[in-house]
Amino acid sequence: MEDLRNAAVENHSSILALPPVTEGHEPLDITVLASVRTVRNQKKRSFVELGDGSTIHSLQAVLEPSQCRGLTTGTSVEISGLWEACPTGKEQTHELKAREVKIVGGADPETYPIQKKYHSAEFLRTVPHLRLRTPFNALLARIRSRCDYHLTNYFHKQDFVRLHPPIITSSDCEGAGEVFTIDSKQPRATDLNKDAAVQKIANGFFRTPKYLTVSSQLHLEAFIHEHQKVWTLSPTFRAEQSDTPRHLSEFWMLETEIRTERLDEVMDLAENMIRSIVMDLQDSKLGVELLSAKRTRENGLHDGQDAGAEAIERRWRGLMSQPWPRITFREALQRLKDAVESNRAQFQYPPTQSTGLQLEHEKFLAGELGPVFVTDYPREAKPFYMLPSHQDSSLDLLEHSTVACFDLLLPEVCEVVGGSLREHRLQPLIAAMREQKVYKGTKSVVGASENDENPFALVDDLGSLEWFVDLRRYGSVPHGGFGLGFDRLLGYLAGVYNIRDMVAWPRYYQRCDC
Amino acid sequence: MEDLRNAAVENHSSILALPPVTEGHEPLDITVLASVRTVRNQKKRSFVELGDGSTIHSLQAVLEPSQCRGLTTGTSVEISGLWEACPTGKEQTHELKAREVKIVGGADPETYPIQKKYHSAEFLRTVPHLRLRTPFNALLARIRSRCDYHLTNYFHKQDFVRLHPPIITSSDCEGAGEVFTIDSKQPRATDLNKDAAVQKIANGFFRTPKYLTVSSQLHLEAFIHEHQKVWTLSPTFRAEQSDTPRHLSEFWMLETEIRTERLDEVMDLAENMIRSIVMDLQDSKLGVELLSAKRTRENGLHDGQDAGAEAIERRWRGLMSQPWPRITFREALQRLKDAVESNRAQFQYPPTQSTGLQLEHEKFLAGELGPVFVTDYPREAKPFYMLPSHQDSSLDLLEHSTVACFDLLLPEVCEVVGGSLREHRLQPLIAAMREQKVYKGTKSVVGASENDENPFALVDDLGSLEWFVDLRRYGSVPHGGFGLGFDRLLGYLAGVYNIRDMVAWPRYYQRCDC
Repeated sequence: MEDLRNAAVENHSSILALPPVTEGHEPLDITVLASVRTVRNQKKRSFVELGDGSTIHSLQAVLEPSQCRGLTTGTSVEISGLWEACPTGKEQTHELKAREVKIVGGADPETYPIQKKYHSAEFLRTVPHLRLRTPFNALLARIRSRCDYHLTNYFHKQDFVRLHPPIITSSDCEGAGEVFTIDSKQPRATDLNKDAAVQKIANGFFRTPKYLTVSSQLHLEAFIHEHQKVWTLSPTFRAEQSDTPRHLSEFWMLETEIRTERLDEVMDLAENMIRSIVMDLQDSKLGVELLSAKRTRENGLHDGQDAGAEAIERRWRGLMSQPWPRITFREALQRLKDAVESNRAQFQYPPTQSTGLQLEHEKFLAGELGPVFVTDYPREAKPFYMLPSHQDSSLDLLEHSTVACFDLLLPEVCEVVGGSLREHRLQPLIAAMREQKVYKGTKSVVGASENDENPFALVDDLGSLEWFVDLRRYGSVPHGGFGLGFDRLLGYLAGVYNIRDMVAWPRYYQRCDC
Repeated sequence: MEDLRNAAVENHSSILALPPVTEGHEPLDITVLASVRTVRNQKKRSFVELGDGSTIHSLQAVLEPSQCRGLTTGTSVEISGLWEACPTGKEQTHELKAREVKIVGGADPETYPIQKKYHSAEFLRTVPHLRLRTPFNALLARIRSRCDYHLTNYFHKQDFVRLHPPIITSSDCEGAGEVFTIDSKQPRATDLNKDAAVQKIANGFFRTPKYLTVSSQLHLEAFIHEHQKVWTLSPTFRAEQSDTPRHLSEFWMLETEIRTERLDEVMDLAENMIRSIVMDLQDSKLGVELLSAKRTRENGLHDGQDAGAEAIERRWRGLMSQPWPRITFREALQRLKDAVESNRAQFQYPPTQSTGLQLEHEKFLAGELGPVFVTDYPREAKPFYMLPSHQDSSLDLLEHSTVACFDLLLPEVCEVVGGSLREHRLQPLIAAMREQKVYKGTKSVVGASENDENPFALVDDLGSLEWFVDLRRYGSVPHGGFGLGFDRLLGYLAGVYNIRDMVAWPRYYQRCDC
């Protein structure tokens, strides 16, 4: 029974796995399960291009015209026949001489939305469930899968523990912008009664308002007391109304936390990890396919601004160069000012301490330096949980102080990773929370002063972040970590301009198909 | 620089990685970063049990009483000293003679919630951010991580593509019970104005109501046209108010879809995959630790009903036996009736076709048979998307027809996997949707009849599932798959009775801490 089963499966070959057959040698008898990409009819024979998701490249099948009935773009077929070498000089090296053609699932040519014609990126986004079948999008799915696999092994070898942090959380105040709220099923707008709506919100499924996570960092930090190094790759949400090629409302974030006292160690981790992904891609068949893929409309190319093979290779080379420069925010500002003064650059926003780094500034820096870490941003530009760059005073809240953080900027796409050392000391953390007003307690806050006799004094009400402060109250350890926008990095590596085309089912303001 | 870095890291050893030192040989000079589990003071020396997340087992450090100042349960310390063999006859084989003790982070013994004393499972759930530090919970995190790693490689070797399906979806009607709705930030109950609440719901962030996914199956199915085999491990949500040890509102589900026409092939995949996890666990240090772990309150044992080493080994042996029986629902019913008749069992609900399999029935079956697949349930008990067991008539909707599905029942915990072949034919799918009223279109449904001249005729309004029907309209292929409750399986393998204790941050009705 087992043997029969395996035989039945092995009888079918994926297009990628088809072996070469030398001209003049016995052809192979094969069966492929595939879908029809195009059909070209000649008088005596028809040429059918087949794809099956295993590779972006098509297999050419040669059919009798009578075998072609019902075969149109999108049709699923099972074709048996002889796999043989083509005479030299033909475009393809092999072709399948069809003996038996079976239509598994038809596709009405009158209504099938994805034909061999011009499709705008925006149109393709309206049919994500069909877009993902196009050869280029199938390749993107395999690249994503490969990266997840590679990272899993990369972190495992270094003894990281992989976590599944919660998606529904109690905190809405990590300074990461707008959040989504959740509740159990609400009345529909049509049958909505005002009182019912109010009641629903007041008595939620979880008693108090809950949110979709904007970052798993805070939860990851909780594990650092016991585990030394943790990571996760999990969904993250922002309810921002940004309409840019760099933002999604739902995206996957790779986050890590490690025990360390040195920001350099966190940057080393990000740098080595990204470089290892590039190395893996370069060495894999997938990487070769990506570079050789024809960026055509039929392949599901999305956008005129997508990068071609040359540009992708340039990006990969840039990432393989080492080490990536690390400059402070102050140095970055000076570079920008120098560039303006020497007329090498013009900016809409003049670079100053208070405006921070705008996208145009980041683009200039990464354009000049290649992948670059910018470190030690002004404290006021960053969230409450970051450790000061210099901890001479335990409550160093001076206006011009900086925090031990970094943004990793890549050419063209700019910020892809953000990381920092975390404030692991109890009193400075509470002071920073007070300063940034991240808790919403109604009671007065005690125990947050340097002069308290009991350093463990309980603070009355830190709201939904009480637990996060507990991590500093009990056995705190110095640590740091980063968050990497996984879809954004993949888009950069694969040359996909708009992040909405990098994920199968993009969610953004006013759009959530399927 | 690089060398110095590595040296600094290697200077610290994880407890798990400490090498044995033979009695009489030179002791090793080591430094450990760990947290204090317990302190036992004697007159001349103190014994400190240390843990660091790498293993459930403690390292015993021997300190001068003067070195113990500030060392209480939960304190983070860095201790350097000599790692030497103990004289034979002592409980532990090695101990660390402390030379230097540095407190990294204190833990106020007055308020630290997790002391060496009795903690109820319910109490521990109120402090999930600290519960995860207990030795047994740290072990659970490592087992989860290991399983994710193992599965990643298991599926990769078999050419599966790993997907990241969407969490926010448009469909609320997969028959999986109550759903969570999402929207951008709502006004708080306190500052709520009725008109604002209504407005908020009417003009949502995504224009129409959106939900947290109850299963990624439908989205996974979309990939089957192009890819042959896909899988995902991702978060899933149910807004059910069930208060049982088997349910969470947020849980991770492992889901697969493969191209196949045979239900047996889907069951083979589930069976082989679970068996491979058990094999990996058995062969790993983690598995050995799990069996040797003392199930004590201090270790973070949760519940008197957790399984001990013997029971866990019995479960693993049960899963390693092969093949697991596969019986139909009809056979299952007959077995239950026979058991009642022969007085081998008593049930609250008499087993009949219409009541289906209640938990008590599942328990009995899995208790008698071990892991068992029950297949071919009555059509009316299952969701619309399942393929009929027999497809003689393309619209076989007879009352007593069954569908090609299975539930995998494990002893004690019962259903862990549910799977089926999917209805891949257009007209029968639409008919089943009509029958189960899963679409909410206002227009009349056309094209759903067997007698339509054009088999691709568009149906007016299939609501939020129009895209799912498209998959059958264009190049459909026979396929099937399953969903596995990842947390439930882990709990079974690790002997954790209540699923709320298997995940670090459990979410369930009225509870969502941190």
